[in-house]
Amino acid sequence: MASLGHVKPQTLHFEEALPLRSGATLANYDIVYETYGTLNAARSNAILVCHALNASHHVAGTHEGVEKSEGWWDNLIGPGKPLDTDKFFVIGINNPGSCFGSTGPMHVNPATGKVYGADFPVVTVHDWVDAQARVLDRLGIGQLAGVLGGSLGGMQALDWSLRYPERLRHCIAIATAPSLSAQNIAFNEVARRAIITDPDFHGGHFYAHGVVPKRGLRVARMIGHITYLSDDVMEQKFGRQMRATELGYSTQDIEFQIESYLRYQGDKFSEYFDANTYLLITRALDYFDPATGHGGDLSRTFASARCKYLVASFTTDWRFSPARSREIVKALLDNKLDVSYAEIDAPHGHDAFLLDDPRYHGVLKAYFERMAKECAA
Amino acid sequence: MASLGHVKPQTLHFEEALPLRSGATLANYDIVYETYGTLNAARSNAILVCHALNASHHVAGTHEGVEKSEGWWDNLIGPGKPLDTDKFFVIGINNPGSCFGSTGPMHVNPATGKVYGADFPVVTVHDWVDAQARVLDRLGIGQLAGVLGGSLGGMQALDWSLRYPERLRHCIAIATAPSLSAQNIAFNEVARRAIITDPDFHGGHFYAHGVVPKRGLRVARMIGHITYLSDDVMEQKFGRQMRATELGYSTQDIEFQIESYLRYQGDKFSEYFDANTYLLITRALDYFDPATGHGGDLSRTFASARCKYLVASFTTDWRFSPARSREIVKALLDNKLDVSYAEIDAPHGHDAFLLDDPRYHGVLKAYFERMAKECAA
Repeated sequence: MASLGHVKPQTLHFEEALPLRSGATLANYDIVYETYGTLNAARSNAILVCHALNASHHVAGTHEGVEKSEGWWDNLIGPGKPLDTDKFFVIGINNPGSCFGSTGPMHVNPATGKVYGADFPVVTVHDWVDAQARVLDRLGIGQLAGVLGGSLGGMQALDWSLRYPERLRHCIAIATAPSLSAQNIAFNEVARRAIITDPDFHGGHFYAHGVVPKRGLRVARMIGHITYLSDDVMEQKFGRQMRATELGYSTQDIEFQIESYLRYQGDKFSEYFDANTYLLITRALDYFDPATGHGGDLSRTFASARCKYLVASFTTDWRFSPARSREIVKALLDNKLDVSYAEIDAPHGHDAFLLDDPRYHGVLKAYFERMAKECAA
Repeated sequence: MASLGHVKPQTLHFEEALPLRSGATLANYDIVYETYGTLNAARSNAILVCHALNASHHVAGTHEGVEKSEGWWDNLIGPGKPLDTDKFFVIGINNPGSCFGSTGPMHVNPATGKVYGADFPVVTVHDWVDAQARVLDRLGIGQLAGVLGGSLGGMQALDWSLRYPERLRHCIAIATAPSLSAQNIAFNEVARRAIITDPDFHGGHFYAHGVVPKRGLRVARMIGHITYLSDDVMEQKFGRQMRATELGYSTQDIEFQIESYLRYQGDKFSEYFDANTYLLITRALDYFDPATGHGGDLSRTFASARCKYLVASFTTDWRFSPARSREIVKALLDNKLDVSYAEIDAPHGHDAFLLDDPRYHGVLKAYFERMAKECAA
């Protein structure tokens, strides 16, 4: 399949303050984004892709001069791919608070001249969606053909459909949930405690100390990684494989391959991910709960929705299980909304939404092809 | 139901070196134990109770002058309780390497005059069972009526039945597994990394520095706690309950009750549990895999077993799921061994083995009553 080839991120600067859910505002901020494909004359073929925890605006294509720089959803998006850039104009936007280009905690707060650090305002899914809407205003896109996202990205897609119902025709929400469960919050909290109690965190102002709370970031990532994979796929990939032929009888050295793998993932992550961003993004996950404004009633929550929906989940995803997607589907059906639901039998757990399982990509391809016909009509 | 009342731990000293699986030995060590009930004249009514990670020899009754000092399985063991101390002589033994009285990493190594710390030899389930067998030798108990344990304690019960087949008539293995899965090892490894990378760990020699790696212990306990509870019970107990009526919009402060609960559990644990013990015990869990000596074939592994078995699991236990217990049951049946299996529909996850669910306790009570009749016969 043809690739998009090299793509270039672009930056928009926003002077005007963005009001946030917390009551704070974010002013004088940058938003980094990428686009793929061509906006048609009717400006009707734009699809926004929302990113999850460890991702960015760089959704597809490669960055010139950077090896292995394929975007995080490059297997899905490109010419002739399920989300076909010959037909759609695809937009990836890096959310504020992230650590991949848009203004975040590692940047200087123009109001104080100091690095934000822990003072970066708490951002929510609502705030991100508002920030994305402003980017679309600048790009002159009134109505999106669709908003697509997986996991935390799926929450943003759902939020778009609730808060900007006239601005999208389709919402594609994959491997997501209408809110986190107690267990989901619990895992986030352990990861946050690992970061916050790392002596190198310095209350979130570690930049000034020239250190990074790598220990905490490593532990956070290891925990996250366990929850992204299914028990089965971990068993298949690693099982009880030893690193050496003989046991070393050590509590501190690596004995099992799974340990080696997790340490590697943790080390790699701690080299590039920002600790304050980790806290901000896990909190955005915790807070997302659109039903709170409707007495906890998800069906009433979706009464304002107007678009069509594709909801997809994976059988072995124990982080955001199919049962959570079915809650969404039920609420949509209660409102007589047009919804397609695919529960995909895939072994990979939550990570499946990033992989190119043929049944999964087949469902998306068919849905996007129908959407393309609508744009052309 | 009558309680055992006050009970007193006793100590046995062992001069002779205990050979360990690692090739090392443990010499000049103490073992702390408790007994409840009376050994009958035929010395045929003894039941050994093996403890799991965060437990000890103090299985039942209370310690004089200590409030809330009920043993960890006090709801099960006592006069008229399912394991009736009017009929059985029950023994609880603290395993070496633990931090509740028997020789462990916080004690002085008599060979060097220094605190063991990270130099305490790595102990395995096999080693613990050998140490327990020596205690029984001293107590003059040749054959046990049974060995009972849950979780890691269940692994010890299984190991007894494999390595001392003539020394027990019944093995009661609850909420356990024939070995850890990759996911089980992964959770242990994250907990260990949190402890080992805590700057206060000092490579396991923190005692000399007058500090305790509390940050690591807290995170380790929080992770453990999540895996002990079912998703459902966490949802019922905590759900998305907030601590305050309004969101605080903070990444570092407590927002949800589940966070408060986990932090409390972590704090409490870090006040009393030894970091080196945590590493040793999680490693003993990782290493347990009796089938390795039999080409990975669990059925062949149990060919040497002679006793009768009661195996019990809980439907919502995702740490040691019913599927793992069924592996054990299949291996036992393949050897035409006498096995009763109870898969108990309980909402509490792995923790269920410590709770007094009436169906669960009913199964145990009936089994122990049959055992008591055999002793009397």
